[in-house]
Amino acid sequence: MLETTIAEIRPPDPVAMTAARDLQARLTKPAGSLGALEELSVRLAGLAGVCPPPLPEPAAVAIFAGDHGVHAQRVSPWPQEVTAQMIGNFLAGGAVVNAFARQAGASVTVVDVGVAAPLPFPPTHAVPDSAAVPAATVPDSAAPACAAPAPADGTLAPPRLVDANVRRGTRDMTVTAALTRDEARAAVETGIRIAGELLDAGAGVLLTGDMGIANTTPAAALVAAFTGADPEAATGRGTGVDDETYRRKVDVVRTALQRHRPDPADPLGVLAAVGGLEHAALTGLILGAAARRVPVLLDGVIAVSAALAAAALAPDAVGAMVAGHRSAEPGATVALRHLGLDPLVDLGLRLGEGTGALLALPVVTGAVRVLHEVATFDAAGVSEK
Amino acid sequence: MLETTIAEIRPPDPVAMTAARDLQARLTKPAGSLGALEELSVRLAGLAGVCPPPLPEPAAVAIFAGDHGVHAQRVSPWPQEVTAQMIGNFLAGGAVVNAFARQAGASVTVVDVGVAAPLPFPPTHAVPDSAAVPAATVPDSAAPACAAPAPADGTLAPPRLVDANVRRGTRDMTVTAALTRDEARAAVETGIRIAGELLDAGAGVLLTGDMGIANTTPAAALVAAFTGADPEAATGRGTGVDDETYRRKVDVVRTALQRHRPDPADPLGVLAAVGGLEHAALTGLILGAAARRVPVLLDGVIAVSAALAAAALAPDAVGAMVAGHRSAEPGATVALRHLGLDPLVDLGLRLGEGTGALLALPVVTGAVRVLHEVATFDAAGVSEK
Repeated sequence: MLETTIAEIRPPDPVAMTAARDLQARLTKPAGSLGALEELSVRLAGLAGVCPPPLPEPAAVAIFAGDHGVHAQRVSPWPQEVTAQMIGNFLAGGAVVNAFARQAGASVTVVDVGVAAPLPFPPTHAVPDSAAVPAATVPDSAAPACAAPAPADGTLAPPRLVDANVRRGTRDMTVTAALTRDEARAAVETGIRIAGELLDAGAGVLLTGDMGIANTTPAAALVAAFTGADPEAATGRGTGVDDETYRRKVDVVRTALQRHRPDPADPLGVLAAVGGLEHAALTGLILGAAARRVPVLLDGVIAVSAALAAAALAPDAVGAMVAGHRSAEPGATVALRHLGLDPLVDLGLRLGEGTGALLALPVVTGAVRVLHEVATFDAAGVSEK
Repeated sequence: MLETTIAEIRPPDPVAMTAARDLQARLTKPAGSLGALEELSVRLAGLAGVCPPPLPEPAAVAIFAGDHGVHAQRVSPWPQEVTAQMIGNFLAGGAVVNAFARQAGASVTVVDVGVAAPLPFPPTHAVPDSAAVPAATVPDSAAPACAAPAPADGTLAPPRLVDANVRRGTRDMTVTAALTRDEARAAVETGIRIAGELLDAGAGVLLTGDMGIANTTPAAALVAAFTGADPEAATGRGTGVDDETYRRKVDVVRTALQRHRPDPADPLGVLAAVGGLEHAALTGLILGAAARRVPVLLDGVIAVSAALAAAALAPDAVGAMVAGHRSAEPGATVALRHLGLDPLVDLGLRLGEGTGALLALPVVTGAVRVLHEVATFDAAGVSEK
């Protein structure tokens, strides 16, 4: 499934991009006056292969949740059980991502791809465990739709939980590889499958979400591995660790990279060595969106570290990526620069969950809406300069 | 009316601000992880005097339109009739502000406060010309509601036009004062009246909009006059003027300031000397929102130059201001720094109309929504660090 998905990812369509640039120049506004929104609309036309591209709606947030063996190295002040507790909060609608998703009219799908503890909540829908079942034997058409982004009456379905647990948390990357290569692949393919199901159910844009206590540590390791940045430049304070914990976190990232020496030309190997299950699944979600030529709005440092893996697997996948916001984590900025992406929102957020992507969604929709709805100088009878 | 409005403007409520800070600390997210949204929610609680403050909805955009005698100095490549033509575009729903307002569910009210040419469109509602009628003789209760932000069925009313023309364009400020003191006051009081009518009709937040060919020139003069910035630092390229026009524009601003030497301690005098009718009306809109303790979302350089006048008239009015975006105009950044405001969106927009304020609206709503909807650690059963 990974290889066929990668093979479907194509470069942007230059004809649609030129058409979007030409249309922008004829709309009733000074040329260039919509700043970054104009180039964003051109990129999305190139992705869709048509001008104007479809409005990116309805929106679907996929929150991949996992735990991390490296938590044992005391890189986070939060207990590991908070990952599962926050899933309960997501399903009850009480987290920030829920508030922002309701406001944006976005569905929320929580995917247990690697939580340590068995969850006390019944899954809304179980996808086959692709770690146990070779992907080739599971035809795509057998995967049932797991989330309808928005019922026809305009109300929003409640958040739902998908059980796709590949393993109950990664191994401690300072001791051994976090995942086997097969586990990493299974998590990536879970992300691809979730993307397909959300798109089959009608989503017009996917938003990345994540939950996993300690998951900024593997994110920093992934950023350092794929960009060559020093661990200190790629590592941040996550949920707000103190100086001592921060220094330990940098050492942990450095130790793991020295132990595994992951090769950025082998993205699955990097994900296995120093990644997380939610990171790997987000890599798959991004690839799945790119293969279907639908934009994927990236949240913070977890998402952009996963995006580095997606870009390493399929360089043209970058054409589907929209950077939602600039996380306060320094590794996010390192990764965005490597990907050549400028974030839409820059408000010092460091929460994750998909919150930064959701804040940026109206900007993306607005950028596309301009191409659909704004009058041209000719049509409006407005004089040009 | 101006004096009574100023007298109603009060400092933020420290009790509500403390309650908002305390609540933010108990919500299920790491402390501080919502970045600028947390302090914004605290400011809005202080403004409303209650925690949580009301959700800022429905939203109403007021677009004040005016023309400028200084257009004769060739500071803009656009013909003056574009001001009136764009009003037609606004009323037809074809401008970018309309597309963004539809997306945000915001009403659009266009106010002719100073357009040079009589408009060929019938006004949806005429307010009394406060330039001709002393304000004291017009009881506020006589002013009928001019715009219902949103009909009860959830559909959005079409954009409407208010005829409140104070004069048919300003005078050329390089030759004489742009406005008489009475004209400036009349425009400010028009803005106050529009704010009152929109709030009486149910608006929970006001957004500033503007239209006026050449209006970045008086905006630059206002910024320089109120902040002491050099005309070159306060002047930008507006809709995108060439080098020669830009140099002329800076000279025009410098000439006007040298001729009138406006005193920032006399804000009405500054507005009269080098302002515009839409700038003065926006000053009034801001004061009117502040007096009612409702937030006003500032668009670009026209709005922030008007905000400087509002802050000079009533320093506590800053508590009602939310900077929507950082305009590409350098004067906007000078003004925001002077006001102590950080913009929410920074995407290189330089269109005006209210477009930057509309892009920021979901961020403001999201910041407040968190206080209403997110569960506390206690309630959600989530462990703290």
